[in-house]
Amino acid sequence: MQQSFERLAIDSHSNARRGRLTTAHGEIDTPTFMPVGTQGSVKGVSPRELHELNAQIVLGNTYHLFVRPGLDVLKHFGGLHNFMNWDGPILTDSGGYQIFSLAKLRKITEQGVEFQNHIDGARAFISPEIAMEIQTLLSSDIAMGLDECVPYPCQYDYAAQSAEMTTRWAKRCREWKRRKDEMAKPELADSATRRRADSMLFGIVQGGTFEDLRKESAQAIVDLDFNGYAIGGVSVGEPEEEMMRAVEWAEPFLPGNKPRYAMGLGTPPQLLELIARGMDMFDCVLPTRLARNGTAFTAAGTINLKNAEFILDKNPIEENCACDTCREFTRGYIRHLIKAEEILGLRLITLHNLHFYLNLMNQARAEIERGTFDQFRKAFAAEYKTRDVLRVE
Amino acid sequence: MQQSFERLAIDSHSNARRGRLTTAHGEIDTPTFMPVGTQGSVKGVSPRELHELNAQIVLGNTYHLFVRPGLDVLKHFGGLHNFMNWDGPILTDSGGYQIFSLAKLRKITEQGVEFQNHIDGARAFISPEIAMEIQTLLSSDIAMGLDECVPYPCQYDYAAQSAEMTTRWAKRCREWKRRKDEMAKPELADSATRRRADSMLFGIVQGGTFEDLRKESAQAIVDLDFNGYAIGGVSVGEPEEEMMRAVEWAEPFLPGNKPRYAMGLGTPPQLLELIARGMDMFDCVLPTRLARNGTAFTAAGTINLKNAEFILDKNPIEENCACDTCREFTRGYIRHLIKAEEILGLRLITLHNLHFYLNLMNQARAEIERGTFDQFRKAFAAEYKTRDVLRVE
Repeated sequence: MQQSFERLAIDSHSNARRGRLTTAHGEIDTPTFMPVGTQGSVKGVSPRELHELNAQIVLGNTYHLFVRPGLDVLKHFGGLHNFMNWDGPILTDSGGYQIFSLAKLRKITEQGVEFQNHIDGARAFISPEIAMEIQTLLSSDIAMGLDECVPYPCQYDYAAQSAEMTTRWAKRCREWKRRKDEMAKPELADSATRRRADSMLFGIVQGGTFEDLRKESAQAIVDLDFNGYAIGGVSVGEPEEEMMRAVEWAEPFLPGNKPRYAMGLGTPPQLLELIARGMDMFDCVLPTRLARNGTAFTAAGTINLKNAEFILDKNPIEENCACDTCREFTRGYIRHLIKAEEILGLRLITLHNLHFYLNLMNQARAEIERGTFDQFRKAFAAEYKTRDVLRVE
Repeated sequence: MQQSFERLAIDSHSNARRGRLTTAHGEIDTPTFMPVGTQGSVKGVSPRELHELNAQIVLGNTYHLFVRPGLDVLKHFGGLHNFMNWDGPILTDSGGYQIFSLAKLRKITEQGVEFQNHIDGARAFISPEIAMEIQTLLSSDIAMGLDECVPYPCQYDYAAQSAEMTTRWAKRCREWKRRKDEMAKPELADSATRRRADSMLFGIVQGGTFEDLRKESAQAIVDLDFNGYAIGGVSVGEPEEEMMRAVEWAEPFLPGNKPRYAMGLGTPPQLLELIARGMDMFDCVLPTRLARNGTAFTAAGTINLKNAEFILDKNPIEENCACDTCREFTRGYIRHLIKAEEILGLRLITLHNLHFYLNLMNQARAEIERGTFDQFRKAFAAEYKTRDVLRVE
């Protein structure tokens, strides 16, 4: 199977695009939201439920899976699809983000990064090439290059040196992929090798909050010719304007015929802003993480079902919502479950929240096709009253 | 609708019966297992999943629901069926068991029991009549009389006095129900009142571990003429032989044309033993509680999926099991989920364990019909290697 990205419609009022990405495990309609399956499971949700929600792709966290259950186990089970029984596309991150946010005693060199994991403290080393090997072993449909994600705030000099190193690492990832593709040519390879070569590799733009660094990084990464491009180093605690600027600075350098992925983002209004800025793919822990705290998304903003105002509320979380939770359960019942720490409560809110995010992408795609995305985005933002602080896992 | 109990087949080698109990919310094939919905939710399981598991009735804990969300909320939502969105039959306990095991500062008098709940310490008083009112408000299909469940071990004198008080309480519950039924007569009542009167009331046999007390209690309770009879005061820490004896002593006094409920029991082999001793209905937290600890039921006994031996195991929890968990997931993956504290892990084991219990009842019914229950029970016991300590919530 050949992977490809098609643009089906382009918005005339913004950079929004309606597209379709073809992977070895199926098609993805963009703009798309990718539920986060940190440890080989989208928290609280079964693969069957993901299909029922019309999720077209899930994200797997390489670092978490590397630490637990570990590569031997994932290899034994033939990759992440088989292990978690998800037959749709999987995007894996490179592990870099979590190494820099979770692991202990990190030592970064040109060669790669040495660290002790946060579970049992075992030492490990990941280089760009090893990150590629691991994601191949995970049977990833879309692999990410190893990058360093600098914190916010960050000194200019550090951000500059780091972005340059990320580019050199990206080059090594690209080179690794080129050799892999070479080996997979029909005249040389068996079918398993060819199948592994169906995976895509995305490059990651870094550069912190600095315009020249973001632009240089974007140009350098694009020059390496990846299957798609990601904006990294966002959603690390910076103000929303900085996040938007990071995307705006890089976007003009990204080729229109390749998918663009804004990493770790965002709130519902942010997603629409990012779509307007030409982004196609998103992942975010907000819908699943906030659900575990009793928070549900609605068109009017988030509500916390723990609040006493919902005790006697016979309405669904959101009027006219088509999700199973809203068709079957009241706010009052879900509030009781959350207060009583019943697992079903967070399950029901998680399903609603994922539906909300996935449906928002569905609406965005339809509005782009219809040429009305601009009005839709403004109307949505006007009705949506709350802002949630982003924290990423 | 008229509630009724039919015996469809009687085992010639034991006291086992295959029956059908008709309630206002549907039919229940007996022997039956009732998943426990302590706080208005079978832990981790949705009503849709309960239907898919072919659960025909669930149990609601009156004490837990009385404490949280409280009667005002349940009344506002029109009872427990509406509140939890379960349209099948519900059996509610009287609350007595949890008052005696969970609440603080209990004071038992002839009139009833005063207690402080274990959540916020609020004081409350429950009499036999109030227990009836509460269960009516919960829209219970099968209500239980208020009883005192004595601990194990227990002095003879205390057990005797307690069983006698339980009988006097049972008489008050029966009297309450008779007045209710009277008021619900077609010429007097509106349809809502008649519907409420469709509920059944079961009497509970007590008497601790003493033969004469069990027999006296059984005779006295049966003399009051309930819709069904329960053996209470079992599964309180006594040895298995004592549990079986308590049932054996009472059973000859129970009319054959009424359902019999062995409360809070038991392990899979115990259920088959109790069926052989003429019991029809069971509830137990083992399948859901043990699942949360990583323990799964199989025909060979329980296995704990946390064990390292399952790390690379590509088999389902149980070979040839028809449940969704076993059709879709490996032991190795479920082990990973449990070790990583992923909610999906306990969900998957819970579904399997409930399927195991419900399917065991399904098999028992078929074997009784076929006249082969005795061989089935012996073969099952021979293959089942583990014994689990019972602890009840």
